[in-house]
Parts: sequence; C-alpha cells; structure tokens
Amino acid sequence: MLTYIFDNTASTALYEQLYQFIKNDIIGGVLKAGERLPSKRNFAKHLGVSTITIENAYGQLMSEGYVYSLQKKGYFVSDISEIAKIRPADAVSDIQLPTEIENYFADLSGNRTNPDNFPFSVWAKLMRETISEKSGELMISSPCGGIYPLRCAIAKHLKSFRGMDVDPDRIIVGAGTEYLYGMLIQLLGRDKIYCVENPGYQKIAQIYKSNEIDYRYADMDGQGLTIKGLSDADADIAHISPTHHFPTGITMPVSRRYELLAWANERDGRYIIEDDYDSEFRLDGKPIPSMQSIDISEKVIYINTFSKSLASTIRISYMVLPVHLANLFYRTMSFYSCTVSTFEQYTLARFIEEGYFEKHINRMRLFYTRQRSRVLDCIKISPLSTRCKIIEEDSGLHFLLRLYTDLTDSELLRRFAKNKIHLSPLSKYYNNPSAAAEHTFILNYSNIDLSSLPKALEIIAEVI
Amino acid sequence: MLTYIFDNTASTALYEQLYQFIKNDIIGGVLKAGERLPSKRNFAKHLGVSTITIENAYGQLMSEGYVYSLQKKGYFVSDISEIAKIRPADAVSDIQLPTEIENYFADLSGNRTNPDNFPFSVWAKLMRETISEKSGELMISSPCGGIYPLRCAIAKHLKSFRGMDVDPDRIIVGAGTEYLYGMLIQLLGRDKIYCVENPGYQKIAQIYKSNEIDYRYADMDGQGLTIKGLSDADADIAHISPTHHFPTGITMPVSRRYELLAWANERDGRYIIEDDYDSEFRLDGKPIPSMQSIDISEKVIYINTFSKSLASTIRISYMVLPVHLANLFYRTMSFYSCTVSTFEQYTLARFIEEGYFEKHINRMRLFYTRQRSRVLDCIKISPLSTRCKIIEEDSGLHFLLRLYTDLTDSELLRRFAKNKIHLSPLSKYYNNPSAAAEHTFILNYSNIDLSSLPKALEIIAEVI
Repeated sequence: MLTYIFDNTASTALYEQLYQFIKNDIIGGVLKAGERLPSKRNFAKHLGVSTITIENAYGQLMSEGYVYSLQKKGYFVSDISEIAKIRPADAVSDIQLPTEIENYFADLSGNRTNPDNFPFSVWAKLMRETISEKSGELMISSPCGGIYPLRCAIAKHLKSFRGMDVDPDRIIVGAGTEYLYGMLIQLLGRDKIYCVENPGYQKIAQIYKSNEIDYRYADMDGQGLTIKGLSDADADIAHISPTHHFPTGITMPVSRRYELLAWANERDGRYIIEDDYDSEFRLDGKPIPSMQSIDISEKVIYINTFSKSLASTIRISYMVLPVHLANLFYRTMSFYSCTVSTFEQYTLARFIEEGYFEKHINRMRLFYTRQRSRVLDCIKISPLSTRCKIIEEDSGLHFLLRLYTDLTDSELLRRFAKNKIHLSPLSKYYNNPSAAAEHTFILNYSNIDLSSLPKALEIIAEVI
Repeated sequence: MLTYIFDNTASTALYEQLYQFIKNDIIGGVLKAGERLPSKRNFAKHLGVSTITIENAYGQLMSEGYVYSLQKKGYFVSDISEIAKIRPADAVSDIQLPTEIENYFADLSGNRTNPDNFPFSVWAKLMRETISEKSGELMISSPCGGIYPLRCAIAKHLKSFRGMDVDPDRIIVGAGTEYLYGMLIQLLGRDKIYCVENPGYQKIAQIYKSNEIDYRYADMDGQGLTIKGLSDADADIAHISPTHHFPTGITMPVSRRYELLAWANERDGRYIIEDDYDSEFRLDGKPIPSMQSIDISEKVIYINTFSKSLASTIRISYMVLPVHLANLFYRTMSFYSCTVSTFEQYTLARFIEEGYFEKHINRMRLFYTRQRSRVLDCIKISPLSTRCKIIEEDSGLHFLLRLYTDLTDSELLRRFAKNKIHLSPLSKYYNNPSAAAEHTFILNYSNIDLSSLPKALEIIAEVI
C-alpha cells in the first residue's frame, strides 16, 4: 500500500500533507491513470491517521480532479497525461518596463498639471463629506453613463461656462478621454475611416492604431484641418481640437467650422469628434464657443476631461452625444459598467455643484496668466531673447518657441538632453516630420519651474 | 453705417452686445462675405460708445473668425456661406434610457454585492488616512499598469491566497474587468478567434461583439469547456472561468486543465484567459489552485476583480500577464494612462497590505456559508421543497434550482414577473437556449432578502 511519512512538526495539517504527497505522485507519474487508491479505512489504518484525514485529502483531490470516485468501487487516479505536452516557456526574459521619465534639470515641454495647484484641502473635505453623508448611494452601482447628479452638474457647468444646452442623459462619463475614444470606436463603428490632425496629439493616433482602426492623417492650414485633407483621406470621422489645437495653438475660425459641419452633413455616418481638452484655459477674451454649440445637425460629439482642468491623477472625462447616438449607446452599449467609482463621481459632482470648480478655473486662469508673462519675461531678459521667436501665444497652456540656429533638430535635442533640458520638437507631432517647421519647440508653461528657467534659457542660448 | 440699439439696462457688457449684434447679422446674411466693417473710430463715434468697446467686440469676432482684418485696410466679414449646407437634425427624438431594474418583491438571481457587507468604516478610515498622508503621491500620475504599492499588495495576496508566484510588474490594474477585456483584445490582436463558454457569462460575448471581434461559442461538458468545442470553433483564445463556472457552477478538473494547456501549447498565439471572478468564495475545503499557477508554458492570462469581492461600485480589476505579454504590453500599450484614480489605488493597497482584505474575505465566507444554509433551509421547509431540486451547491455564490413543472420557461417567467419575482433562467446564458435544461434557474444567494424569501418560495410553488 502507498506509504507516506508525515512531518508532525510542520504547520501544515496532516490532510494537506497527504493531499500534497498523492498529488505529487500523480503529477510525477508514480501513480498511473486509472490506478485504484486505497480505501479510506485501510489507508487510515496503514498510515496511522484518522479516516477524516484521508477523507479530507481525497475530498480536495477530487475537487481539483486528480482523483475520481466510482460508487461502491472506490477512488481512482485521473488521467492527466496531457501534462506531458506542455513545454516550459523559454528561459524567462526579464520584464522591460517602459522608460522612466528622466530627471530633467528643466522640463519645458511637460504637460502634467502642477500638483501644488490642486485644491487638495477642498477635495479632501468633499471626499470626507461624501463618505459620511452618501454611504448608501456609494454602494449603489452607477448607471452606465455615470451617476445622474454628476451629469447634471456637468450639464450646468457646460451651460454657464460654454453656453451649451445639454440634456444630462446625453452625457457619458468614463475613466479618461482615452477610454472614451475606445467607446466611440465601438459606437461609431470600425468600418469608418477616422481622421486625425497632422500635426496633432500623438495619443489619438496611437489609440486608433492600437485598436487596428483605419485612421489617416489630414493636413492642416492656418485655420486648422482642411476639407481637402478630409476628402483626400476619404474620412468619415474627423477628430479635431478646434478651440485650441495641439501643438500649433490654432483656434479654428467659424468659417472653417461651418465648412466642417457642411462636410459632415454631406453624408450619413460622418461625424466630428470635438476634443475641447483645455478650453477652460483660454486666457484672453470670452471663451470661443464650442462647435457642439453651433451644430444644429447632430454631427458633433463633444469630449472634455477633468484630468487637464483638475489633476492628471483624476481619471474622469465625459462626452456629449447627439441624441440619436445617445440612444444607440443606451441600446447597444449600456451593458458596460461605468468605469469611474461612485466615490469619485459623487465627490466631483459636489465639487462642481458647490462652485469650487468655477473658482478653481478662475484661480488657475490667473495663475497661468501670471506664469505665462513670467516665462515670457524670463525669455525677454535672457541671452536667448534675440535668438528666438515666440509663436501663437494667445491661448491655451503652451506656445511655440522657434530658435534661430543652423543646427539640425536632432543635434539640438542631443545637446538639450546632454544638459538635462527637455524640449519637445514640433516635428514630433507630425506624421511626416520633415513637413514641420525646423528648430521649433513646444513650450508648455503650465508647470515650468521658474527658478531653473533663467539658467535653462542660458544653456539653450549657449548650445544653439 | 451699421446701427445697433444697445440695452443699457442689460447685465451684458456693451462690447458683448455689439459682438452679438454683428455676429447675428453675419450668420443671418445681413452682412455679406467680404463686406467692410466701419473703422473703429468712426463706428465708436456713430454708436456713441468708446473705441475700446468696438475694439473688444471686433477682437472677439476675430478670435472666433467671423471677421478678419487686413493691414491698413480695415475689418471685413468672413465667408461663412457653408452654413447654408447644414441641415437641422430631424425633430429631436426623446432619449430612450435603458430599462430600469425593476422593483422586485424578491430578487433571487441578482448578483450585486450586498452593500451592508462592505467594510465601510474601515474603507472610509483608510481613505481619510490616504488623503492626509499621501497628498504628494496622490498627485503623481500612476504608471500605466497601476501604482507599484498596489501591485505589490496584490502579488502578496495572490501568493498567500492562491499560491501564485507573480512579479508585481506582470500585474496590470484597470477600471473593471470589462475594461481589461478590451485591453486584451488590443494586446492579443484582433485577428484571433476568441472562444467563450456556452453557456456562460453573457457580458464577455457582448464585449467581443461590441468590439467586432470574431468570437465563437464552444460547448461544455460536465468538466467545462471541451477541446472538441475549441477545435470546432478553430479558436486561438479560450476565455474561461475554471474555478467556478457561471452559471453551471462546474469546477474544471485538473485533467481538463492540462488538456487545455496542452491545446494552448500546440500553437503559438494560443492563450487561455482565466477569469477567476469569485474564487475567494469557495466555501468548502482549500481553494482550487488557479490554472495560472500550474502553467509553466506562459499561456495563461489571469484576471480577477475587487468589484465582486469588495463592492460592485469599486471599479478595480487586475490581470496577470505572462512575461512576454507583459513586455509586449509595456512596449506597445504603455502610452495608455491607468484608468483607476490614485486615490482609490492607494486606499486599496492599504486595505490589502494591512490585512483588512483577508479579514473581509473570511467574514464574507462565513456570512455566505450561513446565508447559503439559511436559503437551503428556507427551501426545505417551503411548499416548494418536494417540487424542486438544487444542483451544484458546493462552490461559489449561486446554485441552480430545477423546478418540477410542465409549464414552459417563458410561461414560468411571465408568472414570476407578474408576482414581482426575479429568477434568471439557465437558458438565458446559452447561445442556443433550447440546449439548456428546462425549468432551471440561477439562484444567487449572496444578496437574497431572507425575510421575503419564504413568501417568494410559496408564490413560486403556487404558480408552477
């Protein structure tokens, strides 16, 4: 009969030891498929343990399927001979993590929000209030589009801040704009040709690529995406940021907006995705109305995010769908759970509802206005002042810096990197980098450290 | 010259009124494309306002593009004639929200977690601690796979609870299992044939469908998904829940597990997605080891969620990738931001790290064990006892209830609905409903209201 030696000093229970012994013998081929195991009573006597121990071990072996029982015949070893066909994976290679963000002396192109500007104490207070006052609601699953109070708060904000009249049921909340892009692909269909701006924000193209979508680049002129570009690309969906284009900073004039709307009107299934990502931070004059607000033809899908306006660690974005697309969403995609937790949805709803969001935006506009002029002043008094030009400084959180130099962009980047200065070249945002104006860099002033800026500008002036 | 009458009692600034007048005239066609607007000085004199007012109005009209200026020539109306091509959308139809969950007298098939069981005060305490102690970290963007402390905590939990040895860098955190399925489609490729269990959890097929993936159903036998089913479907990816299959409750025996692993080993690009969604709640014996833990060939992708084990409103799930897929993920998909906010990631990390998660699971297992026997007792003493059979009651949070009746399933459902009783039929989870055992219903006891259960069982006995 099978004999196993128990370790009575071990912390593992006897039944578990026995289970492990038998399991190892089955995997190791010592016990063959179909072989009969000793009866519980005999085995217990033989091993000097209780029948309960045998019973528990057999029980676990049966639940896992190493052993099966036949009524009145006993316990038998299962056939796991397929195990022989399993090849161990090649010597496990190390995990290659994506390259860390470098420790720059000066990062002039970073687009993360400055954590110091986040209204942390207010947010913490609202979270605490939410936790103590909403314990019931927090445990009720959110509707697929987000909790109603948050969508109402967003609708109100859009009304007062962007002059948009939006039924809260047309608003769909999700964990970040990138997530919503993925939802839109499912909603609008994979058979469509999606068109992104060239130059443009790279992530949008990356998401379409990752989803194996037929996406194309359309060229821009000084007014934004061109109709010719869309026609050449045979596009169905135009993905644009008309309020403040990244990286050129262009605000699309109303004539081009109407041209785009007319283009979308030419055929069913054509839509415009309007990414309004930093419209809150237009620093001069009245806000530019969104395309959504002048669209009477239900062709514009409006997207915005709180990751830009609040903090990049808050993953809450939303889109406003035309009524017929909202209905399509509810009909075909409402099985999806909302990706934002109720905790954060209720906290954000309060934050908007109680006026903190508006206050925050106003405070940030003031901060950015000052920051911008400080950065410009810094450049003005730096040795770089006569050797560069600032382009498109009237909106959003970045402008372009053109350097007067004969060096190539790649040589410039090499020299900047050597000095631990981060500047993104404009060409990086082009599908065809050679089309980009040379020696032109994105200067995002939202999070520039002013103390290291003079030195950084000095270094730039030196190396060019 | 253009003449407009200002409303001096209005709250709108004069420049804004003027901007609106001119804009309306341009949209309305009163001012034609190319028409020259009065010079600022003359216009100001004519209207009796300051030139600053004219300047601001022209400025805003120019930023939006209704007006353009030519140096030394003045201001001109832009061409927005394309506006004529825009058709208003058809009379806006109402938004059709997805049907609300009904107000049942007794919901015997609901699978939401019971909010009363959520350790709210502990969670609230940890959130408060996180807010006050981690303010710095909370503002640093999470790596694409989730913050490292959370992935370490999950790895530790998997080690102690599931016997799994997992490098934290192989763990990818995301806002819900549904989101991770979408990520996996991008990672494994859209050219693959995905295979789901028939019967099975409907949402998985819905997600593949929504992503326009070639997905197929493979039949099961008493041991789970069959190799024949996979071969017939010509599958590349097998999406399964071997620990506790929904809805049949089957635990896949180890022989079938090895058969599946051998199947995956036959060809490159074949993988098994192991959805371990309620493994924490196996109520008898030791936990069944995951397939991931017996896989030496890097073929298993393990997925689990905290939405089941903690609360359905917490949208945090994770997957464990084989090393080569983790590398592929970091190489091709690390541009994605993590969809879970840092607040919740840090809170959950603490919750696991400080032992609360293990305590919670143990408490819930006790609760579910009691709840299960109470539900079974209720059935035993009810008039239904002799007219039904309970199937597969040894694991997970649900079992099957077979009713002895001659009525059709649809007639049964009609009668249940009339009495406000919710029971999901097994056939609902079949791709081919006629293949399902008739008169068989899912009884999910995790959240059944015991006070209304006796009456509900009486009604069921009456109507069948």
